[in-house]
Amino acid sequence: MNDTALADQPHRRFNPLKGEWVLVSPHRSNRPWQGQAESPTSKDKPAHDPNCYLCAGNTRVTGATNPDYAGPYVFPNDYPALLVDTSYVDTGNDALFRAQTVRGTSRVICFSERHDLTLPELSVPEIRRVVDVWTAQFAELGKTYDWVAIFENKGAAMGCSNPHPHGQVWASDFLPNEVQKEDACQAAFLAETGENLLVAYSLREADLKERIVVENSHWIAVVPYWATWPFETLLMPKRHVPQLTDLTGDERDTLADILKRLCTRYDNLFTTEFPYSMGWHGAPSKGGERAHWQLHAHFYPPLLRSATIRKFMVGYEMLAEAQRDLTAEKAASILRDQLENHWACSRN
Amino acid sequence: MNDTALADQPHRRFNPLKGEWVLVSPHRSNRPWQGQAESPTSKDKPAHDPNCYLCAGNTRVTGATNPDYAGPYVFPNDYPALLVDTSYVDTGNDALFRAQTVRGTSRVICFSERHDLTLPELSVPEIRRVVDVWTAQFAELGKTYDWVAIFENKGAAMGCSNPHPHGQVWASDFLPNEVQKEDACQAAFLAETGENLLVAYSLREADLKERIVVENSHWIAVVPYWATWPFETLLMPKRHVPQLTDLTGDERDTLADILKRLCTRYDNLFTTEFPYSMGWHGAPSKGGERAHWQLHAHFYPPLLRSATIRKFMVGYEMLAEAQRDLTAEKAASILRDQLENHWACSRN
Ligand SMILES: O=P(O)(O)O[C@H]1O[C@H](CO)[C@@H](O)[C@H](O)[C@H]1O
Ligand SMILES: O=P(O)(O)O[C@H]1O[C@H](CO)[C@@H](O)[C@H](O)[C@H]1O
Repeated sequence: MNDTALADQPHRRFNPLKGEWVLVSPHRSNRPWQGQAESPTSKDKPAHDPNCYLCAGNTRVTGATNPDYAGPYVFPNDYPALLVDTSYVDTGNDALFRAQTVRGTSRVICFSERHDLTLPELSVPEIRRVVDVWTAQFAELGKTYDWVAIFENKGAAMGCSNPHPHGQVWASDFLPNEVQKEDACQAAFLAETGENLLVAYSLREADLKERIVVENSHWIAVVPYWATWPFETLLMPKRHVPQLTDLTGDERDTLADILKRLCTRYDNLFTTEFPYSMGWHGAPSKGGERAHWQLHAHFYPPLLRSATIRKFMVGYEMLAEAQRDLTAEKAASILRDQLENHWACSRN
Repeated sequence: MNDTALADQPHRRFNPLKGEWVLVSPHRSNRPWQGQAESPTSKDKPAHDPNCYLCAGNTRVTGATNPDYAGPYVFPNDYPALLVDTSYVDTGNDALFRAQTVRGTSRVICFSERHDLTLPELSVPEIRRVVDVWTAQFAELGKTYDWVAIFENKGAAMGCSNPHPHGQVWASDFLPNEVQKEDACQAAFLAETGENLLVAYSLREADLKERIVVENSHWIAVVPYWATWPFETLLMPKRHVPQLTDLTGDERDTLADILKRLCTRYDNLFTTEFPYSMGWHGAPSKGGERAHWQLHAHFYPPLLRSATIRKFMVGYEMLAEAQRDLTAEKAASILRDQLENHWACSRN
């Protein structure tokens, strides 16, 4: 693969899951930065914050009161982007002004009652309860909706509006853009090669080893060859698993384990609560054909060089092509080398 | 088009230029915000800053010295993402690990010697000189490279690393992702309808009027029906013009006029230096067939509700589909209603 030539020369890599390219400029890593600095989250947070509308027992913006929960807690998003009862409108076949109403629902998942503990600071059994909630939400909402988006925005830099550790579920009666791209790419790969794209890919990565960040008996996390964000990772089961609901109990346990180890590495890298958006992609809930789909989670973290210096995906990236400086191999080796004890947490 | 039903119900709109959808949630505009606040740029800037590496006469990071320029000034980017002399490597036909080296060059365009004046604060003749530089850069670099990306990142929120008003040119020997999408969509539209997509679209918008922000004799700026960013606009010539180099002298003059009027509205909206990424798309420099291409500029501004509250394109947007609250029609009417005298500038 001529990896040495790619280690220091400008090149493009192809993302076979999206059918898009990314520009890599490894010679440019030492660029000085005088632009915007992010404010890292303070670790000085109480276990319960009386002013937090996600904490147990508190009143939310809409007046509803949270129960005195312990462990994960799911409730309807008070400002949902999707509504269950939208009436049906379609602008029809006007190619330039094409729109259709949609239905869906949005929920919030508090990971635990602890206001101060993010995912990697929870114990493996506590994370396993989050995995169980993700799976149950998928199972329940997948009966009604075509797509169940399960994701987390972590940190102010990723538009998270409340520091209480939480994720979201947005279910919809349509397959969103990014899902459609992955569906088409995985289907074409299976048709052309007879193989499942990500199953084939994870086998290759397990063999090559240079982009592995962490693995355990059932899971592997890599900085994908085509990573866009500086420390982007792709988390995949080692066998073919189309949906969250297809995971065995063992696989859920080891998922909790690898999540803790991956996210601890992220936090230790810049001694911060490492911001990211992460989420699950798997076979659509209602789609018939699942052979081409492999369950996976994407982690898209913005930080580049410290807790305050991020990568901006702006002018060239928005109008031309995503661009990165650090190679995927370099990013993987940096993350792999991090310790597995969380810098801020004595609960390891 | 059932626009009234779309004004207050969740729906998706189709972007025919990219072949992608955007989720619109108009019922959600009053969502409270407790997340990250942007720092607006201070208007308290000197006309010349001795510490700015873009100002006339100053020394740059690399040791080069800027001449004592007046008006636009173009120089090579000191940290280019692309290099002119990369050696040729292609990983060949491995579908999972596909990469190729690329060649290109990057330049910086200071809009004027004035450190304190952004585009809308320059006079129309001064902006016309910027238009001429964009055109000259396209003409020159288009001889060697397949794509000449001409863009501006404005403001710290858009990753701009220096407040001295400037844009960039990144030329490459490949057609970037976003360009390939627009190329394919415009070609398919012409093949199917016999019409140029954006020429047909701008005629419809000129007629409908509700999404027009500003127009003059040769140009029209609209919030496109499929806008993603809250106050995104699309700027198009009124006749079919494939490339910057096809503009007449009159069209360059009126382009300077409409840029001033559009950007003044942006700045007046939240009484700030309105951040954005903007850039030009037109027929590829070396491509033979140009009938399907229409020259246009995209403005992608992040601000949503004030000089400090922005829209974050994060979890759902990165993993599922771009989402907006404000409708395109509402955004257009808000921008249209802004005054044309710049709030901070006496040079109008
Ligand atoms: O070249 P600049 O202005 O220093 O950098 C900015 O624009 C580039 C092109 O859009 C991006 O790749 C960078 O992430 C951004 O910070
Ligand atoms: O719902 P939240 O966390 O308040 O809002 C955040 O996540 C949403 C889903 O990714 C985005 O649409 C918002 O722009 C972002 O600020």
